[in-house]
Amino acid sequence: MDFTGLSAFPLTPLVDDKLDEAAYVRLIERLRTAGVDSIGALGSTGCYPYFSRNERATALRLATEHSGAVPVIAGIGALRTRDVLWLAEDAQKAGVSALLLAPVSYHTLTEDEVFDLYAAVTRELSVPLCVYDNPGATHFTFSDGLLARIAQLPNIGSIKIPPVSALERIASLRSQIPETVTLGISGDAIAVDGLNAGCGIWYSVMGGLFPEAALTIARAALAGDTAQAREHSAALAPLWDLFRRYGGSLRVIATAAELLGAVAAPCLPAPLRTLTGDARRQVAEVIETLRLA
Amino acid sequence: MDFTGLSAFPLTPLVDDKLDEAAYVRLIERLRTAGVDSIGALGSTGCYPYFSRNERATALRLATEHSGAVPVIAGIGALRTRDVLWLAEDAQKAGVSALLLAPVSYHTLTEDEVFDLYAAVTRELSVPLCVYDNPGATHFTFSDGLLARIAQLPNIGSIKIPPVSALERIASLRSQIPETVTLGISGDAIAVDGLNAGCGIWYSVMGGLFPEAALTIARAALAGDTAQAREHSAALAPLWDLFRRYGGSLRVIATAAELLGAVAAPCLPAPLRTLTGDARRQVAEVIETLRLA
Repeated sequence: MDFTGLSAFPLTPLVDDKLDEAAYVRLIERLRTAGVDSIGALGSTGCYPYFSRNERATALRLATEHSGAVPVIAGIGALRTRDVLWLAEDAQKAGVSALLLAPVSYHTLTEDEVFDLYAAVTRELSVPLCVYDNPGATHFTFSDGLLARIAQLPNIGSIKIPPVSALERIASLRSQIPETVTLGISGDAIAVDGLNAGCGIWYSVMGGLFPEAALTIARAALAGDTAQAREHSAALAPLWDLFRRYGGSLRVIATAAELLGAVAAPCLPAPLRTLTGDARRQVAEVIETLRLA
Repeated sequence: MDFTGLSAFPLTPLVDDKLDEAAYVRLIERLRTAGVDSIGALGSTGCYPYFSRNERATALRLATEHSGAVPVIAGIGALRTRDVLWLAEDAQKAGVSALLLAPVSYHTLTEDEVFDLYAAVTRELSVPLCVYDNPGATHFTFSDGLLARIAQLPNIGSIKIPPVSALERIASLRSQIPETVTLGISGDAIAVDGLNAGCGIWYSVMGGLFPEAALTIARAALAGDTAQAREHSAALAPLWDLFRRYGGSLRVIATAAELLGAVAAPCLPAPLRTLTGDARRQVAEVIETLRLA
């Protein structure tokens, strides 16, 4: 697969603290029907590190069985290299088209440790891998130099960069990595700017639940119609505000999915919780105002 | 058990990327022979979140089988509440005397989520639990107010606090928690000051490999012989320097264990690595200079 366009990251919903297979299949089918360019199964939005190896294999099998022609990118991050290698194998057996790997940490990792992790994993892959730079969750901060070194490894297809300082980094990073490796922007609120600045793909949280709205933005931006793309994105400002107010996109999107009946409540793995009270009412209002559904 | 004195936290060594049962038993037996007051099995030094449920159950069984009369405190932290509950059950079945729980995070946790985690876990325990405040690894920062709320839950026996700002917090925290709950100091370099300031227990990394040296410090401090305790601790300044220089105690102690032949190399779960080159030589020098063995 090539890492371009809109990559939509669905939740991995629970019911009674177990994988809600029916709801997950509905989320996947919705993304297929909307025509997203790829599906990011078990991304951070899909809470990959909270699930067991078996649960992750089951989710990936469901994703590939119901995604039709849409390629599935599978999150394979784990604390231990051994587990990452097992997860890479499981994901390829499940028929995914690509892998996504973040250097999850408990003890702080060094640059050499992270490089060796990617070297070990990319050594024997039959699908390309996206390097996942998400310091907010992994607590590892990639230098551009380290990303450039990792981008030289075999089977690297893309680098997913976080929104913080993204716009300042893109041109320099772009010049340090092979042309075959795309840069991808995370952080829905600045996706348009990222795509304009040279990112080839948008790794999107909102796209996992609201693929049509995300596609409208992505298609305009990638067609070079910046003004139109900005306008579509600006219209969603109340959603971006909620993301900022409630510690990121996860709880807002999970709450929205519950409110819309796309998933059962509570859909997140405890101790994580969806929003309650006033925050939940604000999510409901924004869904209604923006006619998201 | 009461949470007092020296609690020694051993490594959980690997050989060929699997639990090195023989080396682990030797580490546990050494702590028993030295007469530490408790053994912290599968603490951060024991890399608890890097091991599978089965590996953790095996390690705890080995620890309780070889610890003699020394009580074992078992780390049960995991990202998901479901897993923490399973690990609490496994640990109690393995015969441990107490549990140690840190709020491990990937997505940032809220105070309410963390409180609910402790409420769920402490509801049905047959052994006491130590709250583990380690923001450097869990990326959750406890407020004193939250610790005070959690300390009111049933079966809470101790709170393990990190070295940063510890000395400023102890008196205030002490006044907000029940008398039955001890405060414990982490961060070997400031252990004496923590014990002097009102901590009843030292949760020690160096004590897991060098129990005699740690006991000398702990016994003097807890007997009120502050000058003597400080002198013993100051003599280990070169070790504290290494901890500071190499990102904490884990890699230094794991390297020391390898150099001393107490464990095979590499003993840490990849991607974590022990020190190499000049750093490794410095560890060897400090072991020799301080006559640690």
